[in-house]
Amino acid sequence: MTMNDGSSLRDIPTGTRLDPWFNAYAARAHGLRSSEIRALFAVVSRPEVVSLAGGMPNIKDLPLEELAESAARLIRNHGAQAMQYGSGQGWEPLRQRIVDVMAYEHIKGDPDNVVITTGSQQALDLVSEIFLDPGDVVLAEGPSYVGALGTFRAYQGEVVHVDMDHDGLVPEALEEKIREVRASGRTIKFLYTIPNFHNPGGVTLSAERRPQIVEICKREQILIVEDNPYGLLGFKAEPLQAMHALNPEGVIYLGSFSKMFAPGYRIGWALAPHAIRDKLILASESAILSPSMVGQMTIESYLSNFDWFSQVQTYRGMYRERKEAMLESLDELMPDCTWTKPEGGFYTWVTLPEGLDAKSMLPRAVKNLVAYVSGTAFYADGRGGNHLRLSFCYPTPEDIREGVRRLSQVVSAEKELVDMFGTNIRTQLPSNAVSVPGPDQI
Amino acid sequence: MTMNDGSSLRDIPTGTRLDPWFNAYAARAHGLRSSEIRALFAVVSRPEVVSLAGGMPNIKDLPLEELAESAARLIRNHGAQAMQYGSGQGWEPLRQRIVDVMAYEHIKGDPDNVVITTGSQQALDLVSEIFLDPGDVVLAEGPSYVGALGTFRAYQGEVVHVDMDHDGLVPEALEEKIREVRASGRTIKFLYTIPNFHNPGGVTLSAERRPQIVEICKREQILIVEDNPYGLLGFKAEPLQAMHALNPEGVIYLGSFSKMFAPGYRIGWALAPHAIRDKLILASESAILSPSMVGQMTIESYLSNFDWFSQVQTYRGMYRERKEAMLESLDELMPDCTWTKPEGGFYTWVTLPEGLDAKSMLPRAVKNLVAYVSGTAFYADGRGGNHLRLSFCYPTPEDIREGVRRLSQVVSAEKELVDMFGTNIRTQLPSNAVSVPGPDQI
Repeated sequence: MTMNDGSSLRDIPTGTRLDPWFNAYAARAHGLRSSEIRALFAVVSRPEVVSLAGGMPNIKDLPLEELAESAARLIRNHGAQAMQYGSGQGWEPLRQRIVDVMAYEHIKGDPDNVVITTGSQQALDLVSEIFLDPGDVVLAEGPSYVGALGTFRAYQGEVVHVDMDHDGLVPEALEEKIREVRASGRTIKFLYTIPNFHNPGGVTLSAERRPQIVEICKREQILIVEDNPYGLLGFKAEPLQAMHALNPEGVIYLGSFSKMFAPGYRIGWALAPHAIRDKLILASESAILSPSMVGQMTIESYLSNFDWFSQVQTYRGMYRERKEAMLESLDELMPDCTWTKPEGGFYTWVTLPEGLDAKSMLPRAVKNLVAYVSGTAFYADGRGGNHLRLSFCYPTPEDIREGVRRLSQVVSAEKELVDMFGTNIRTQLPSNAVSVPGPDQI
Repeated sequence: MTMNDGSSLRDIPTGTRLDPWFNAYAARAHGLRSSEIRALFAVVSRPEVVSLAGGMPNIKDLPLEELAESAARLIRNHGAQAMQYGSGQGWEPLRQRIVDVMAYEHIKGDPDNVVITTGSQQALDLVSEIFLDPGDVVLAEGPSYVGALGTFRAYQGEVVHVDMDHDGLVPEALEEKIREVRASGRTIKFLYTIPNFHNPGGVTLSAERRPQIVEICKREQILIVEDNPYGLLGFKAEPLQAMHALNPEGVIYLGSFSKMFAPGYRIGWALAPHAIRDKLILASESAILSPSMVGQMTIESYLSNFDWFSQVQTYRGMYRERKEAMLESLDELMPDCTWTKPEGGFYTWVTLPEGLDAKSMLPRAVKNLVAYVSGTAFYADGRGGNHLRLSFCYPTPEDIREGVRRLSQVVSAEKELVDMFGTNIRTQLPSNAVSVPGPDQI
């Protein structure tokens, strides 16, 4: 299971000819692969490993006692409604509250254009389902969210990456890719972008570039899918204006309660132009009938009866402290690397010294009791080998410092080897330590 | 919006050329249509209408106070886990309890082969996603579950109906259809069947026929998708042996807590051969990352700490009483119709007198304050016009009797008209009274 030939774990199909139903699968099913992140989870769940790999939010500070009482009141007073089916579009009172939440990012939404989904991942899935024919192109930052790449692939879409820099997606690079793709005769269905506190890039699309990107897409008639799970979790300033606010008819905005509250209810949403919203509802009803009423009513009650914005501010402070622990440790211990300086969210994107390969280095890192995600996971085209993603969301600041210390030892040792023997040494390193399947939490 | 020309509400696409993104949709998105049932819901939610249309379970008898306390305990003691992401396959303790539940139907399942889904509808969606290429054939009883027909259609599958009688799917009819479809050069991907208390048919596949159907499919190498949401809700005897128990390697079994407990948590499952289970997990992670942990832990706690089987028995008694109210009223008031005699579940399937059309009669019925679902909703090929589905699950026995009384008046009036003027009279009846969109709960 070598990972040095440009292929990767994700290129290994899960089905084999030993499966009697192998020949019955749909063409799209052969594109379903384990992600590299998924393969990590069995390893990183060992308590002695400091995981800088996962993207689980740290929800320890939630007011559990008050939430417990609220959960009891919901079932006691509204149990017959909460435990029943709901509407496919989602519960109207929650859609109204979602519009209030989006107002923090200057969005003027109509609850009638909101579709509530099983996490914003389902919204991504539905958007892919209604737009992607096999071979259609999705433009996305390079790197991009691994869960989105997997979904586009599940619908046989092809991702073409557009360059980012420290101010996010580069407008000129976007224009160039549009020309290139169209010149090759392929159809672009949408631009998938994470403007705030990018996963995994750790950068934010600047205020200056937002109208430029929106304008290019408007002119070229390309729909924008604006994925914004971390938007309220900025460390300093209040959120920038959402791209949706600049052109509501050309943007599908995806939101989630997983990071600003908690993921366990699996409640996210899409705000979409009205005609697209119709399709999303039908596709969602076909997929799940209706989202959980208990989950929807719990979150509506949380937004209405708790000081949810103060909780967001608590999260901001907690994540900022962790981010600072990580960046300080990187400054101190990893002088040969560079990294992005996130203004919010969960991640920083690290560039390794020339010649190092994050994927082949991973088994050594795990042996040294620290885990990360190799940059290759975040590209659809095999790039990313000299990058890795570090998450600061879940471990304590102390564990983050210890994790970076362990990682710096591995990077130093690897660099020494490469300096001594050149990059061919990599092919002799064991590389199957992360092939154990595990859950995907990204 | 005439409904007398063989077309139907569901044939009207939701998108139009006024939608600027119309040309960007995937081919499959043009197959997404409002179901006839969906269109009914705005109408039947008026309190003065007796709805014999919907399939909402009656959950009023659940022990809400105890469930409220249990919900509070879950958040208080395990909130950090319950409100976090979980595994894509679903929580292991719940998968173990699901295996215990399936043992009531003589299934020897392995928790490792269970995939927990957002209601069993999501399991249907995932099965369709991994098996159906455009034009592939699904064999299904005629009539069949409207939500399944919609999902197969969303993946551009084609449904070929197989005849049922009072003992369920007819083995000889199945063999004949397999021959016919294959002779036409098309590929059959699976048989979708609801063996117990069929929706909408109201019949049960006999014990004698189960091994025959399984044997035919095994011989012909056709996968069986056994959908069993109502299996434990039989009025008399204990459940028959599931088809899965007869050939675990050839059957995907779909189960749900929506009817035996409550739908509001959106928790269902698939039990699948191991290689298929791998694909289902990957497809589910791509669609939703992971099912709700709060929902899963709530149901695990319900199964572990409540006398859930006694609740199932309460449901059985409650639904039996309603079924008897319905069949007695039909006996008394609708001598010109025939209907199936369900031994469990929620539905009976009514055949109208010759010449009557359930779909064109519906506006008159709603005007007379009773609602049902026209039989055409349950066929993919336009048949079913002289049938209708009556649900006895939700209204009280008194309301059921009143509903049947109102329906009998409409049928009598309609029959009188048809006897007097012939069936052409139907084209002059108003038929757009049910075009208001509404949620789908089936």
